[in-house]
Amino acid sequence: MSRRKKLMRKILITNDDGVKSRGIGILTELMKPYGEITVVAPFEAMSGMSAALTIGKPLRLTELKNEKNLKVYACSGTPADCVKMAMNQIFSQEAPDLLVSGVNHGSNASIASLYSGTLGAAAEGTVYGIPSIGFSMASHDPDANFEGVMHYGKLIIDNFLANPTVPNTYLNINFPPVAVNDIKGIRFSHQGKGQWIKEFEQRKDPYGFDYYWMTGEFFNVEPQDSLADHNLVADNYISIVPHKIDNTDYKEIERLQALWKL
Amino acid sequence: MSRRKKLMRKILITNDDGVKSRGIGILTELMKPYGEITVVAPFEAMSGMSAALTIGKPLRLTELKNEKNLKVYACSGTPADCVKMAMNQIFSQEAPDLLVSGVNHGSNASIASLYSGTLGAAAEGTVYGIPSIGFSMASHDPDANFEGVMHYGKLIIDNFLANPTVPNTYLNINFPPVAVNDIKGIRFSHQGKGQWIKEFEQRKDPYGFDYYWMTGEFFNVEPQDSLADHNLVADNYISIVPHKIDNTDYKEIERLQALWKL
Repeated sequence: MSRRKKLMRKILITNDDGVKSRGIGILTELMKPYGEITVVAPFEAMSGMSAALTIGKPLRLTELKNEKNLKVYACSGTPADCVKMAMNQIFSQEAPDLLVSGVNHGSNASIASLYSGTLGAAAEGTVYGIPSIGFSMASHDPDANFEGVMHYGKLIIDNFLANPTVPNTYLNINFPPVAVNDIKGIRFSHQGKGQWIKEFEQRKDPYGFDYYWMTGEFFNVEPQDSLADHNLVADNYISIVPHKIDNTDYKEIERLQALWKL
Repeated sequence: MSRRKKLMRKILITNDDGVKSRGIGILTELMKPYGEITVVAPFEAMSGMSAALTIGKPLRLTELKNEKNLKVYACSGTPADCVKMAMNQIFSQEAPDLLVSGVNHGSNASIASLYSGTLGAAAEGTVYGIPSIGFSMASHDPDANFEGVMHYGKLIIDNFLANPTVPNTYLNINFPPVAVNDIKGIRFSHQGKGQWIKEFEQRKDPYGFDYYWMTGEFFNVEPQDSLADHNLVADNYISIVPHKIDNTDYKEIERLQALWKL
């Protein structure tokens, strides 16, 4: 690939922690050598938004920065809204070559992938035909160690550009929050089984009425020696899981067809 | 199954159009003969919420009705929040035997399944190990013809109870908005390819600033003779698609493993 082509690559960056988060700043630094960057990210934190869209309420799009190779917009909606807004209002003539979402503060391994706004944005990019990746750091500590993202992120992006995912599939990449020397390697993996339990803390408001904060504990259903994503990251590997837009259970179609009397 | 067991069956009902919508009323009528019903549904319309959760904002749960076999609660959160709230606050001792979500006003075939709050709730029930179904009517007309749901819904529920889905898979059932006599049959199918395009209507507020309403046109990527869900419903069939919680692209793991240099 010629140097000129490389400089002209158009990259869309989004996230779910908001346009001012540390993670999206790190991802922007990682991506700068790869081309022209357009950030369209939520004004505010939008964690747990999955692929949610804003229907029935108007959206705003605000330009925050307009430099030669770095444009930054804030959108009042969800991560998936940000991608739709980018595609309709900014990239309506020519789609970006790549979408990267994150770096999320918090793991999106295992069942977190169902709720993740970071991955909701990557899914939306995929629906629009853009090769898309979600990056997540398995720690909510705002000062978590992102060395691994800067060090291994380049290797991952170089491989992705040389050999991107098939259409309708995106990547979910989770980093352990440790120093580069403590990262054991990079492994392709699958979405682990797990769920949250004990999910609410019940309190009384000053007027005597109950209200609930979502909290919860992650309950890992995978055996301890499983090489599913959550377990790999807990063992200081970087995990890469390809996720499909089409989650039809094709085997189940055949099984039910044989059993149901319709 | 004995009559007593049948009467004791515990059924959780939710939706994304809100506790007062016509569709959830119809689903509740359909399910009454099958057991004790607990409705936990959003106070307000929560369309397009996918599997979104409410994080960082407290939730409320309000009892609206407490009859022998019919309890109704409204929750201030998303459809997935409703299921989590039900599981933690109401069914903490014994899980329901069945979760039904809907009947949604609007199709959840094709890519709508990605954004659907109706299916976000069915997915959440599945994560909790409850056999779960999402029902949707392929029309936004509030007076749409729901005859087919009442007529064929019983046949579908009877089959589901006799032969439920495997763990970690739920059903997405879409009805055409036509009279029973015009329904051509019930077919198992897969999630069709498609996306929305031209998604925003741009306006100026009274102060001269731009804002955006999400609208859009559905762009069907499936060939006209495809038997994918969207096409079947457009041809007046009831479509049933089994969706998996695990959307790992296992084939892609192998392909990328052979190509990437890590």
